[in-house]
Amino acid sequence: MPSFAFAADLLGVAVFAASGALAAGRKHLDWFGVVVLALVTAVGGGTLRDVLLDRHPVFWIDDPRYLGVILAAAFATIAYAHLRERPVERVEGPLLVADALGLAFFGIGGAQIAEDAGLSWPLVLVMGTVTATAGGAIRDVLTAEIPLVLRRGRLYATTVLAGIALYLALEAAGVGRAAAAVTGMALVAGLRFAAIAWRLSLPVFRLPDDIGR
Amino acid sequence: MPSFAFAADLLGVAVFAASGALAAGRKHLDWFGVVVLALVTAVGGGTLRDVLLDRHPVFWIDDPRYLGVILAAAFATIAYAHLRERPVERVEGPLLVADALGLAFFGIGGAQIAEDAGLSWPLVLVMGTVTATAGGAIRDVLTAEIPLVLRRGRLYATTVLAGIALYLALEAAGVGRAAAAVTGMALVAGLRFAAIAWRLSLPVFRLPDDIGR
Amino acid sequence: MPSFAFAADLLGVAVFAASGALAAGRKHLDWFGVVVLALVTAVGGGTLRDVLLDRHPVFWIDDPRYLGVILAAAFATIAYAHLRERPVERVEGPLLVADALGLAFFGIGGAQIAEDAGLSWPLVLVMGTVTATAGGAIRDVLTAEIPLVLRRGRLYATTVLAGIALYLALEAAGVGRAAAAVTGMALVAGLRFAAIAWRLSLPVFRLPDDIGR
Repeated sequence: MPSFAFAADLLGVAVFAASGALAAGRKHLDWFGVVVLALVTAVGGGTLRDVLLDRHPVFWIDDPRYLGVILAAAFATIAYAHLRERPVERVEGPLLVADALGLAFFGIGGAQIAEDAGLSWPLVLVMGTVTATAGGAIRDVLTAEIPLVLRRGRLYATTVLAGIALYLALEAAGVGRAAAAVTGMALVAGLRFAAIAWRLSLPVFRLPDDIGR
Repeated sequence: MPSFAFAADLLGVAVFAASGALAAGRKHLDWFGVVVLALVTAVGGGTLRDVLLDRHPVFWIDDPRYLGVILAAAFATIAYAHLRERPVERVEGPLLVADALGLAFFGIGGAQIAEDAGLSWPLVLVMGTVTATAGGAIRDVLTAEIPLVLRRGRLYATTVLAGIALYLALEAAGVGRAAAAVTGMALVAGLRFAAIAWRLSLPVFRLPDDIGR
Repeated sequence: MPSFAFAADLLGVAVFAASGALAAGRKHLDWFGVVVLALVTAVGGGTLRDVLLDRHPVFWIDDPRYLGVILAAAFATIAYAHLRERPVERVEGPLLVADALGLAFFGIGGAQIAEDAGLSWPLVLVMGTVTATAGGAIRDVLTAEIPLVLRRGRLYATTVLAGIALYLALEAAGVGRAAAAVTGMALVAGLRFAAIAWRLSLPVFRLPDDIGR
């Protein structure tokens, strides 16, 4: 992997790990729980993609740098929360920006891996979205919550689908791979910021919850 | 796969996808959540079986028709619910019939795959049951519920176990594979209808819930 | 596998299966639910390890003795609970001892498998801990609880990490593999008993639960 891409990958891993550590703090887990939630949030999506595509070794196995970054991010989150009052509000803005970048990088990066595995475009869309969002879904399941990504949000997963679709369309139109990837990532992050700013979300499907079982 | 079996497979996928979409509606998920729940309910069991047995590519990867059927079933469920009043009650009967057929087809189909992989009969029973019921269990976990299949039900998974056992017994007795499979499927669906009609269920194991932790 | 190790493995499987059956009883699941929870608790950790490391066939597939032991443990738990009053309190002490032994054996055994797969020591720590604790975590997710192993406990997973670390340190210092393994297992079980006796636990990370989402 070129060093820029690897640095971006580690940044995404660190941001997702911090989001897992914060979720652990909200549920009053112990330090082991904090590290586990940081780990599954950061590597869960890529791991599910690798297992489904039979890519071994799974990306974080045999490269202990991922574990190192995750451990550092988990304890940095704990330390920061102890040093500051109202720590989450203070970092909410920067975290949202970093999360949008992680979403963009993981989504397009996962799509490229699926492309390289020879999958057709519908599967490329699915695998990129799995890479970007499944870790957060596992984090939520482990804290006994319905995954945020499935609920009325700010176009979270939808931005990944749109970014991958643009990336594939640009490639099909003859644009170079790197340029298409950067444009797709920009659409993911830009759409996410727009959705937060203007409170955009997908329609909700609403049925009475006491029937049909 | 012969075309009849493939059509039955797609029908089972569509029915399980609709059941996932309905569960999403009961939890007021957004459209992305509806599609994800439709997807995991429809392919979760077969995917778990394939990953456990190291069968790659996983059955729905590289054949985008599965995704197409699931997407269509998810949006058809949303559209139907908007067009009709009290939509779930109206389709409850047909859905139960279709679900019993899906259970029969996935259970026996999954058992045959395990058989072809050379597994012994206890593992064939396990893998057929996983194929038929794990998708619904993942659907329930993602909506923060204890899986229905584990709770006092109408012999849901038990009908699959009985059908596979009959299928294996008939084969051992020299009956042809296709005839044994159809008879096993008929037992699954018939037992399921009988369990609903006569309110049959397995015994429950009941301990006080405040002790032993 | 030498016959002592295999017997210890089956003992660990039986104990974890009983713990799954008890969890099913607390949630009033039916007999199928009892067997499924016994199964996932007993084999979930080793299965996740095998799938992540691409070791096939997964350890309990093709060796039906595991399924036999799990089935027997599940129904023995039901039978015992029906025969005795206040059954859980009566077995709590023996179960804790057996659980500590299972933790020790699964943790060091899983670490050895990761070592044999050529993994570096941080991954050996992760895989041993996954082997010993992921089954219980899946059990808790299936009963809609936050996994106990992530919450303020009695050093549950931490004892496994300490035992594997000691095992690896002894091996690095030239101690033979069997002696290092037995010493590591003794540390896991001993630390667990000490944590229960003196109420030791890891620090908790506590954030207000209404912010930061």
